[in-house]
Amino acid sequence: MTDKLNDFGLIGLAVMGQNLVLNVESRGFHVSVYNRTAAVTDEFVAQHPGKRLTATHTLADFVQSLARPRKVMIMVKAGAAVDAVIEQLLPLLEADDIVIDGGNSLYTDTERRDAWLTPLGLRFIGAGVSGGEEGARKGPAIMPGGPASTWAVMQPIFESIAAVAEGQPCVRHIGPGGAGHYVKMIHNGIEYGDMQLICEAYHLMQSAGMATLEIAEVFNRWNEGELQSYLVQITGKALEQIDPETGRPIVELILDKAGQKGTGQWTLVNAAEQAVVISTINAAVEARVLSSQKAQRVAASQILQGPTTPWTGDQAARDALVAKIHDALYAAKVISYAQGLDLVRSMSAHKGWDIDLGGLASIWRGGCIIRARFLNHITDAYRTQPDLAHLMLAPYFAALLNRTQQAWREVVAHAVTQGIPVPAMSASLGYYDSLRTARLPANLLQAQRDFFGAHTYERIDKPAGQWFHTDWPEVVG
Amino acid sequence: MTDKLNDFGLIGLAVMGQNLVLNVESRGFHVSVYNRTAAVTDEFVAQHPGKRLTATHTLADFVQSLARPRKVMIMVKAGAAVDAVIEQLLPLLEADDIVIDGGNSLYTDTERRDAWLTPLGLRFIGAGVSGGEEGARKGPAIMPGGPASTWAVMQPIFESIAAVAEGQPCVRHIGPGGAGHYVKMIHNGIEYGDMQLICEAYHLMQSAGMATLEIAEVFNRWNEGELQSYLVQITGKALEQIDPETGRPIVELILDKAGQKGTGQWTLVNAAEQAVVISTINAAVEARVLSSQKAQRVAASQILQGPTTPWTGDQAARDALVAKIHDALYAAKVISYAQGLDLVRSMSAHKGWDIDLGGLASIWRGGCIIRARFLNHITDAYRTQPDLAHLMLAPYFAALLNRTQQAWREVVAHAVTQGIPVPAMSASLGYYDSLRTARLPANLLQAQRDFFGAHTYERIDKPAGQWFHTDWPEVVG
Repeated sequence: MTDKLNDFGLIGLAVMGQNLVLNVESRGFHVSVYNRTAAVTDEFVAQHPGKRLTATHTLADFVQSLARPRKVMIMVKAGAAVDAVIEQLLPLLEADDIVIDGGNSLYTDTERRDAWLTPLGLRFIGAGVSGGEEGARKGPAIMPGGPASTWAVMQPIFESIAAVAEGQPCVRHIGPGGAGHYVKMIHNGIEYGDMQLICEAYHLMQSAGMATLEIAEVFNRWNEGELQSYLVQITGKALEQIDPETGRPIVELILDKAGQKGTGQWTLVNAAEQAVVISTINAAVEARVLSSQKAQRVAASQILQGPTTPWTGDQAARDALVAKIHDALYAAKVISYAQGLDLVRSMSAHKGWDIDLGGLASIWRGGCIIRARFLNHITDAYRTQPDLAHLMLAPYFAALLNRTQQAWREVVAHAVTQGIPVPAMSASLGYYDSLRTARLPANLLQAQRDFFGAHTYERIDKPAGQWFHTDWPEVVG
Repeated sequence: MTDKLNDFGLIGLAVMGQNLVLNVESRGFHVSVYNRTAAVTDEFVAQHPGKRLTATHTLADFVQSLARPRKVMIMVKAGAAVDAVIEQLLPLLEADDIVIDGGNSLYTDTERRDAWLTPLGLRFIGAGVSGGEEGARKGPAIMPGGPASTWAVMQPIFESIAAVAEGQPCVRHIGPGGAGHYVKMIHNGIEYGDMQLICEAYHLMQSAGMATLEIAEVFNRWNEGELQSYLVQITGKALEQIDPETGRPIVELILDKAGQKGTGQWTLVNAAEQAVVISTINAAVEARVLSSQKAQRVAASQILQGPTTPWTGDQAARDALVAKIHDALYAAKVISYAQGLDLVRSMSAHKGWDIDLGGLASIWRGGCIIRARFLNHITDAYRTQPDLAHLMLAPYFAALLNRTQQAWREVVAHAVTQGIPVPAMSASLGYYDSLRTARLPANLLQAQRDFFGAHTYERIDKPAGQWFHTDWPEVVG
């Protein structure tokens, strides 16, 4: 019977699950599939005749159809559904079987599940999978967390289905426990930042009087250069897309209310807990929240005033502005990645995960939503200096920021003057200027804290670690 | 024996506890005190001869010295110490006794303790107390949460010790359970915002070449006008303070590394969970984190460049700049309070706390660190419109923002151009401009999300609630 048993099983045939199954199958593996609704399973397998797919209608049949150690990937909605599937699998699985959660699970849930399954003799992998529908089918980036020994078992399948960038598969063992889902969460936070920065660039061009198709051309051109990335690429294509019903660019007809999933919020919560600044990602999540308050914005737009003098640049001025927006977008993007990686660095140290930041950047070069040419430079920066304290300080990025900072400032000043909200570009610049300021005004803040709360302070003319208190005057009233 | 029993007991004789005891005693109440270290208790009582104070050396004696229902206030470090004290009190207290936690406890801890003590027949109050050392002694703002019936018992003591503003005591029943500690947390978040905005104003003036004592004069003058507030007042005094050792303003010698306590971080976590934007407070907490990375900043200042053309305004230009900084500070401060109150509104609805925002603003007018003249206007705004959706839309504040927005933008543009980080002023302006923009670029974001994840979108030319998907072109690579 062994020769009839399948290599891999997948539970949950929504869009991502279906595409992953087709990807795995296309690499020569035999795959068992299961979905809660049997009709979905049958329809899926029927739609793909001649493939190495086995439809199963009970979890018992599903498990029995797999060769040991079984490799069971769960692709269901993050949260309670994952636990429910695991509960049902438990009586059916045997020692050393491998359970892979490939959904967008919160890393603390992954750690809880690891602590639940490992003592039962099972092996658990929490794997972040990025790439959307198309990535899942053709090659996603995969971020697996769990024991290295389990990774070794899964490596052949994962490497065969992952995207390839610069000749390397876009999958690596990230670290133990929740490390894989954790870096997927940060990936999504960075994705939020990239998308918001692109939207701000679009808004700036729009406010300078450019038509949607002109803006599309700019993004298409940018995608040929340093900014080459999946998100810039699809932005150009999205802006070009014409609505068949009205003949207008579809983007002009789309409602400006953005949704958000859990990962953006989770990233902010984790950054707050870790006391790491990710202000660009923060601004991006906030921008989605504010976009969703459409009715309040429309009401406020009737009441709250902005600048009264619109920008009146000619074509040459507009071209110059677009060139500066390019630089602002690039610089702010660097800050956003630097912040995200700084959070990974902090959390990795806190948890003892020992995450290789260069390796992480290298697997984001293909398959995933944030894939971009400039990730090669991030990979190189950490390969050259594995203990790099901050991405901004790597020679390539320091030079890039020094080259773009003037244009970046001019763009933010322009936006502020024109009343165009650019929260992410502006937060990035604030971060850059804060971190390159040797003396910040926090001396006054320390004086205030000592004034009202006797918190004490250190002095610049005394050795560190000596704390002083001033007997401040009494305050009346 | 009853006539010998005391009215009130306090556990924990650190600075805040001692001052609260003296405050309560000064209103004619007899107070029992207890501290883990008996010597502290004895020394404290000995230092205040002739007062209605009873030193106790065991918790049993402490409890026995109080009239029933006993009123026991705990002023120990937030966290495990509070639970430890409660554990020790439990066998000693009797039905209907009241336990008040007056520390900076996390509101979820307060809810846990309420659920623990209430079934035991005890009555629990989680009370935020603000005002620092001086406020505790002379009259703090008190934010008690818990059952209304327990509040009624405590009201006479609380009202007698609280600060008074506009003829009203700065204490009100906030709501059930954790509501009191929750609003104290938001109070602290707003305090972070105020302090950071003041520091940015200081930094701007400093960068315009003004001497510390000149800047002190500006704050002293501002404290006579619309910006009148405790924090502006102590800022003027702090900047004036001369170090006896060097003869220089002490602020110039204080190290620019700011500490932070839990409440700032907790506020960010709560805002992220509630999906409410508090970008000014966020920027303020982030600024403290960045200030603490002094070594990295000093290193980065050698590598990362800023603008090369310093500002060269003359005295008249400087005076004009200072006037604009005033407006920017005021406008940004309004945004910060508006965001904090928006978070309270959201959380109150979520928890069913039914918090009266006008009442809350009214008790912040005295005693506490954020006390300020303009809280009268906030109180009025909610008294006039109890269902006010957003503080910015109240007529007084809308007019104020419309009057100051031009100067505010000029200040932020100036800072950005000059390389001076003003993250909180800038985040506030970004929030203002976002919320008054009827059409944000989130339409492009929705297109991107539909492109890579088939998330679907609504259209502006179709009824809300209808979701569309575009069959986007394939992307190569």
